[in-house]
Amino acid sequence: MAYDNRRLAELADHDAFIRRHNGPGTEDVAAMLAALDMESLETLIERTVPADIRLGRELDLDPPRSEAEALDYLKRLARQNKVFKTYIGQGYYNTHVPAVIQRNVLENPGWYTAYTPYQPEIAQGRLEGLLNFQQMVMDLTGMELANASLLDEATAAAEAMALCQRANKKSKSNAFFVADDVLPQTLDVVRTRAYYFGFELIVGPAESLAEHDVFGALLQYPGESGRVHDLAPLLATARERNVMTCVAADIMSLVLLKEPGALGADIVVGNTQRFGVPMGYGGPHAAYFATTDSLKRSIPGRIIGVSRDARGNTALRMAMQTREQHIRREKATSNICTAQALLANIAGFYAVYHGAEGLTTIATRIHRLTTVLAVGLKEKGVRLAHDSWFDTLRLTGVDAGKIHGRALTHEINLRYFEGGDIGVSLDETTTAHDLDVLFDVLLGEEHGLSIAALDERIAAEGISGIPAASRRESAFLTHPNFKRFRSETEMLRYLKRLENKDLSLTHAMIPLGSCTMKLNATSEMIPITWPEFGQLHPFVPQEQAVGYKQMIDELAAFLVEITGYDHISMQPNSGAQGEYAGLVAIRRYQAAQGEGHRDVCLIPSSAHGTNPASAAMAQMKVVVVECDSNGNIDLDDLRAKAEKHSEALSAIMLTYPSTHGVFEEGIREACAIVHRHGGQVYIDGANMNAQVGLSRPGDFGGDVSHLNLHKTFCIPHGGGGPGMGPIGVKAHLAPYVSNHVVTPIAGVNENCGAVSAAAFGSASILPISWAYIKMMGARGLRQATELAILNANYIARRLEARYPVLYRGVNGTVAHECIIDIRPLKSASGISEEDIAKRLMDYGFHAPTMSFPVPGTLMVEPTESESRYEIDRFCDAMIAIREEIARVERGEWPADDNPLVNAPHTMADLMDPAWERAYSREVAAFPSEAVKAAKYWPAVNRVDNVFGDRQLICSCPSIDEYRD
Amino acid sequence: MAYDNRRLAELADHDAFIRRHNGPGTEDVAAMLAALDMESLETLIERTVPADIRLGRELDLDPPRSEAEALDYLKRLARQNKVFKTYIGQGYYNTHVPAVIQRNVLENPGWYTAYTPYQPEIAQGRLEGLLNFQQMVMDLTGMELANASLLDEATAAAEAMALCQRANKKSKSNAFFVADDVLPQTLDVVRTRAYYFGFELIVGPAESLAEHDVFGALLQYPGESGRVHDLAPLLATARERNVMTCVAADIMSLVLLKEPGALGADIVVGNTQRFGVPMGYGGPHAAYFATTDSLKRSIPGRIIGVSRDARGNTALRMAMQTREQHIRREKATSNICTAQALLANIAGFYAVYHGAEGLTTIATRIHRLTTVLAVGLKEKGVRLAHDSWFDTLRLTGVDAGKIHGRALTHEINLRYFEGGDIGVSLDETTTAHDLDVLFDVLLGEEHGLSIAALDERIAAEGISGIPAASRRESAFLTHPNFKRFRSETEMLRYLKRLENKDLSLTHAMIPLGSCTMKLNATSEMIPITWPEFGQLHPFVPQEQAVGYKQMIDELAAFLVEITGYDHISMQPNSGAQGEYAGLVAIRRYQAAQGEGHRDVCLIPSSAHGTNPASAAMAQMKVVVVECDSNGNIDLDDLRAKAEKHSEALSAIMLTYPSTHGVFEEGIREACAIVHRHGGQVYIDGANMNAQVGLSRPGDFGGDVSHLNLHKTFCIPHGGGGPGMGPIGVKAHLAPYVSNHVVTPIAGVNENCGAVSAAAFGSASILPISWAYIKMMGARGLRQATELAILNANYIARRLEARYPVLYRGVNGTVAHECIIDIRPLKSASGISEEDIAKRLMDYGFHAPTMSFPVPGTLMVEPTESESRYEIDRFCDAMIAIREEIARVERGEWPADDNPLVNAPHTMADLMDPAWERAYSREVAAFPSEAVKAAKYWPAVNRVDNVFGDRQLICSCPSIDEYRD
Repeated sequence: MAYDNRRLAELADHDAFIRRHNGPGTEDVAAMLAALDMESLETLIERTVPADIRLGRELDLDPPRSEAEALDYLKRLARQNKVFKTYIGQGYYNTHVPAVIQRNVLENPGWYTAYTPYQPEIAQGRLEGLLNFQQMVMDLTGMELANASLLDEATAAAEAMALCQRANKKSKSNAFFVADDVLPQTLDVVRTRAYYFGFELIVGPAESLAEHDVFGALLQYPGESGRVHDLAPLLATARERNVMTCVAADIMSLVLLKEPGALGADIVVGNTQRFGVPMGYGGPHAAYFATTDSLKRSIPGRIIGVSRDARGNTALRMAMQTREQHIRREKATSNICTAQALLANIAGFYAVYHGAEGLTTIATRIHRLTTVLAVGLKEKGVRLAHDSWFDTLRLTGVDAGKIHGRALTHEINLRYFEGGDIGVSLDETTTAHDLDVLFDVLLGEEHGLSIAALDERIAAEGISGIPAASRRESAFLTHPNFKRFRSETEMLRYLKRLENKDLSLTHAMIPLGSCTMKLNATSEMIPITWPEFGQLHPFVPQEQAVGYKQMIDELAAFLVEITGYDHISMQPNSGAQGEYAGLVAIRRYQAAQGEGHRDVCLIPSSAHGTNPASAAMAQMKVVVVECDSNGNIDLDDLRAKAEKHSEALSAIMLTYPSTHGVFEEGIREACAIVHRHGGQVYIDGANMNAQVGLSRPGDFGGDVSHLNLHKTFCIPHGGGGPGMGPIGVKAHLAPYVSNHVVTPIAGVNENCGAVSAAAFGSASILPISWAYIKMMGARGLRQATELAILNANYIARRLEARYPVLYRGVNGTVAHECIIDIRPLKSASGISEEDIAKRLMDYGFHAPTMSFPVPGTLMVEPTESESRYEIDRFCDAMIAIREEIARVERGEWPADDNPLVNAPHTMADLMDPAWERAYSREVAAFPSEAVKAAKYWPAVNRVDNVFGDRQLICSCPSIDEYRD
Repeated sequence: MAYDNRRLAELADHDAFIRRHNGPGTEDVAAMLAALDMESLETLIERTVPADIRLGRELDLDPPRSEAEALDYLKRLARQNKVFKTYIGQGYYNTHVPAVIQRNVLENPGWYTAYTPYQPEIAQGRLEGLLNFQQMVMDLTGMELANASLLDEATAAAEAMALCQRANKKSKSNAFFVADDVLPQTLDVVRTRAYYFGFELIVGPAESLAEHDVFGALLQYPGESGRVHDLAPLLATARERNVMTCVAADIMSLVLLKEPGALGADIVVGNTQRFGVPMGYGGPHAAYFATTDSLKRSIPGRIIGVSRDARGNTALRMAMQTREQHIRREKATSNICTAQALLANIAGFYAVYHGAEGLTTIATRIHRLTTVLAVGLKEKGVRLAHDSWFDTLRLTGVDAGKIHGRALTHEINLRYFEGGDIGVSLDETTTAHDLDVLFDVLLGEEHGLSIAALDERIAAEGISGIPAASRRESAFLTHPNFKRFRSETEMLRYLKRLENKDLSLTHAMIPLGSCTMKLNATSEMIPITWPEFGQLHPFVPQEQAVGYKQMIDELAAFLVEITGYDHISMQPNSGAQGEYAGLVAIRRYQAAQGEGHRDVCLIPSSAHGTNPASAAMAQMKVVVVECDSNGNIDLDDLRAKAEKHSEALSAIMLTYPSTHGVFEEGIREACAIVHRHGGQVYIDGANMNAQVGLSRPGDFGGDVSHLNLHKTFCIPHGGGGPGMGPIGVKAHLAPYVSNHVVTPIAGVNENCGAVSAAAFGSASILPISWAYIKMMGARGLRQATELAILNANYIARRLEARYPVLYRGVNGTVAHECIIDIRPLKSASGISEEDIAKRLMDYGFHAPTMSFPVPGTLMVEPTESESRYEIDRFCDAMIAIREEIARVERGEWPADDNPLVNAPHTMADLMDPAWERAYSREVAAFPSEAVKAAKYWPAVNRVDNVFGDRQLICSCPSIDEYRD
């Protein structure tokens, strides 16, 4: 070996992570460029990205950091957070994450890299997990139906309000009632939502509900100050008066309290965070949403249902039909897209792990400790606001200043109400020793109380904070899944068994167009389970969250530079919510300019289905702009419609590159047209992965964009959530983004309501995106984008002879994804895009996006993280499938007996002694050498879709639903 | 629900972990007792454990702690360790564990709960990992053969010495040469070993080797002070003089240095810790051992080999034949049993992850930084002991006191030689910034050196610390496995693909008799990857390891109470090494009493094969004591042999309960007999899982025992290591256990040499056992033992009608395991115990222990962690297999065409279009409903054993090899 004279700077190898993140190595890139007849990557980009939007410089970011350096830095930031013992409550509680769940679900890429279970045959594991979650929610709430989670309790309550309005045919009122002991952040979000729905909001004591003529009402159970009151009479009266009722209920309290279903609620919502999900400074956690059976066609979000497969065996799937109910053109009252699947799974597994007995012990302990605290305080003359409680007490007439001082000394957080009351909420982690300290803090050290003596007295006198009428009487978690896995060994095997049913990024590429299933690097994931990030309550004093603030500020600065906007709002906790927040910011801004009448939103026909739904929720009128035959926005149509609606034009929503997978040349002009007519430009960030480092929406005309951090910025999809959708805005919109009632945000107008329960959305997963950007640096980010485009073009080239590529840019290239057209094939052979999607499972792949944005097509997005090896493996499979279709076309295989229509094939098929198909078992299940080397087995045969959607797209319905 | 009046003490539920660890719940226990016709667990224990050894009280341990409490406490201990920046070197180095490997191997139960790959069909994943390791070692050392790891570099060197003596037929010398720049801990261990082998040890400058008549020599490369000298002339001369040579080489240096194979070494050993394995205060890490091809029949430890399966496909397996070479009755020179499979896999994956290019960059960086340091120091007039270096410099004539002071201020550890020299070793984690600080520490802050300027000068002048003759010229890691998985996505999929080939505790029970495959709880595993435990160098000053000391002391105290001994030595890092250490302690003690002539060791014929090997290594003569027809020690034979060898009697080695799975009644008497004849009693702790909380070896006659922490105390088997084998001793033996040259151990005589490279063996995995004991408490530990016995008896009961249970206690019960006799069945049907073992794989199970301790049997040990559900599933499978055998017996299936002899069945079998067997595909692969619900597929068909062992036992050969 020659003397290696590399300098230290080169040897430090700060690009190492870039090579880890990106799939293709130098040789691969050369080979792929050769296949494309391109001399260089730069040539490819020049021919793909319009010159007039090219950034023309490297992003101004720090140079790339190694994984170790990034983690060291992040650890130092994390240590600036102070993990006090926190009794704030208010919807968030300390919890013990069962170690076996933390390690094998939360920290396991087999779970967190999976996609939303649109392809149920390869998702039976997480579907079962989510079904557990639904069962748990139904049992604890006493409701007949539950969905598979929503984003947070506050947005769930807002969805409930909208559902009440939709479903309540008997009321003519336009008003919604909110009890004054609802959590303040919930009220904040509901207020925002109500304003743009045009609902009147009435806030008052729960008992005053009957005084108002409203279509629906929201009550908190227990109330935010801890009161456990009997809701049954209120709910009964409401029903008599045709008021639909929604109860926001604490999930842990329901273990001991009478279930809201038995009390007469129509809808029950809440947070399942305290079931084993770290608080994470506000999220992500799974909210639940449960209803009566009569509302099953209107329930927002995803519902997992039990169905059957082609062999007649039980198979789970997302019961999608309900999801379309609320996307009703201009009348849409929800744009819910993602869920919190990973967190819902964790909460469900927490219930599986503890079972009814374990939960009863935990809830009883929490309540008993609270009772000890209450009795002790009362013994010492402290007045409590209520004489009932589950886990929360509100102390009145105390010396809040003194208590605050002692609490800080003991590193304890309490809730400090305006006016001097003190709130204390206990939780699963509270111990008798903690009570000793709490007494010291609340009473001073000379109190002389004995926990044991109080416990004795309570036992002797039968004292309880739960009034007899409010005690739960029904059983729950009686299904065997909540009984069988009590030993850690059995639990571990159950989790692994479910994991191994599912196809995730640990098995193969998941080439979903528009979904950007890239690497979720381990180094990015490690910090999210650090206690300094995980154990922070969202409402701790800001001086305890200095590390979070610094990290969030830095991430915001990165995103400002990447997007060309002036400010980032981190609050929206999904892409769709980002859209809503962005449009609301536009409306607020326009209202402030005296242009509040502007309410037309132009949306191209190629747009993602959430766009019009979000616009409708912001009380905008959707006007569809047509595309030309090349799939690009018809600029003439845009000019005409902008002209026609000039007076009323509020905004346009554009996705760039387009959902057709093309960098449209006219993007600057499109933005300019809208600006000329006084409108604002919303650039949907779904395809930002094709822009980072090459162009910036803020430079070519965007006023606001949301960024799907769970796509471009490496937050894993978690099997269907969490997501994170911060928005970038130009300076003029910055004062109009979401504020927060508990955690005011600097620079934002005070009266701007919240869109999420927590000020910074799902803060605990932001380190993922921070680390990604930090470790890639400007050079790495740009390379990633270039390689994502290279990979997509290479796929288009390899497939184009067999599958027509539907749309291309002016120079014949595609952006970061490509749409292949299955319609001609289908006409010729009868084989559908769905057959191909299912057949890909036999080859070990997840299907591309089906029939979005164009019915009868497949949209393929490889991302930069896939290697040429894997991409070739995928293309080989697609080509082999094309040959199979050809055999059907040639009549070699019958139309109703071939490996495509029977796909996917399961072990049960192969065992079948009655195998008499036109093709062999080997063709069925081992169609390639790659499969023989490593077989992934679909758990069930093709699932019966009778009850389901006709189209599976990347979360929300097609824009076609919106066309006049 | 009625008012729940449980008190706080009960609600605190400190027994929660006990229920998680133990498989059977209350109802299960009742049902199992009923099946046994036992009225209570206590009755079962009374009838099983002899009354005269029952402890008769609960162990005196703290009450059980919850998982959260135990982890909190351990975290506090961990924080008492101080993680300084450490440049001590001396065989241990900081390393970056690649995050994807840490999360998906080190922290993944799919990897760490697997067993040693004796059943290759269900172990192809880790076998491939270990083959990578071997390939890496062969490439880097330039040797023709490497084993799959040894315990540490020092014991590997001791094994090399023994191998030289065994293999060197040309030399008549009894002396072994060790260069004086060998690592001190290596010399310490080699000295101990040599003494009991009766070898003369000659220590001198490497250059003086030719002056001595020796059978072998050990050289260090680079030398412990960092010198890189050309060994070729020394090795050539040695070869001419019939001296076999062993080179202990730093694995990272070999990336740049001429490989020892090319220099002429016969054996190369070393540590692979710095390839991605945390230092962990001394272990565990994988040592490597590589030789020339001519030594392949003599190499100690496990070797993975490439073989073929029944379909002719490539299949990996342990090439066991070599393992018997060194178990040669009284002449045994190795008792090596376990390896460091998990750590070897990690080191191998580190090489896969980085490849030759990555390793070259890392090693070059380390060397370049060292060169900058060297040139800078020389520029400032500091004298270096050598003018060559790879990563280590030795500074002479410096003011060590001042430097020490500055180093402490900067939280930096250097190596401080006696006499005032300073050692500095750089590693993968060192940065240019670190060098700045190092210059400040070594020179004071006014040095004025510039790293960049030094780097420039080195580049310009072509300066290197590696003499031209010592530079590597050959390629390495050229196999595709070291090239294909460079992106994290590809690496992740590779790791998952391998994991999913293997059956581990995440799939099913692993009912290996004598191996105690119990739960390795996640909470026990979490602390071992905390940096405060992982990043501590074993030779840091003791004040930086206060947390470790406290944890180790507490664990020792627990074990003292559990065993009834007076003192625990934590040094032995495997069970076999514990045996050796215990016997050596006996010999030292006896020598000190003037009884050094005592050298006879009595060993029952039922003993584990390591026992006589260990005895032979301690220079003892093995005398076998017979068993009676019930499998118990023949006390008359024992009396006779003790009498016969009374003068020379040194010790007896007994396993209790016996390896026959029985609590022998005569154990007290057996111990007494030996004591009467002046002998010491060694109780092998392999079956301690049947004793904890019920009886204590220290109470009924034991003088010393080793404890397999990887069996009874929850350290996972890691797919074949790590293990940990501390010994408990009575007070009179305490001064004679192992000491350590670098880390003196209080209370142990100074002249007692070490048995392991690190003072506390594999310290970083001790938190596992600590946490287990802490979370179980006395009550939980006792219950675990009782349930282990219950589970075993329940299995015996369920199987006895179909498979005779070979040995039972006086009341008809078994201990914690049972041996079922396959010989009658085999005679009748031709179906062997191996056929049953392989057929169990089709049912989703790992085989029980085969043919140990009795040929033609299966030994089943369920442990307490298996649930009744799983045990029934296993028994159902065994019963179904018995029915299958009956069909062969009845002639319904031909003897050569039935699902037993063809087992295991693979996907390839099922795909076979030429399937024409006497049974269906379904019978082959889906023989039960449980399998249909969750199928585990063996990766290959039955592996060809022509090159292998005839008998597979729990690590070491049967005692039968030792009988006269």
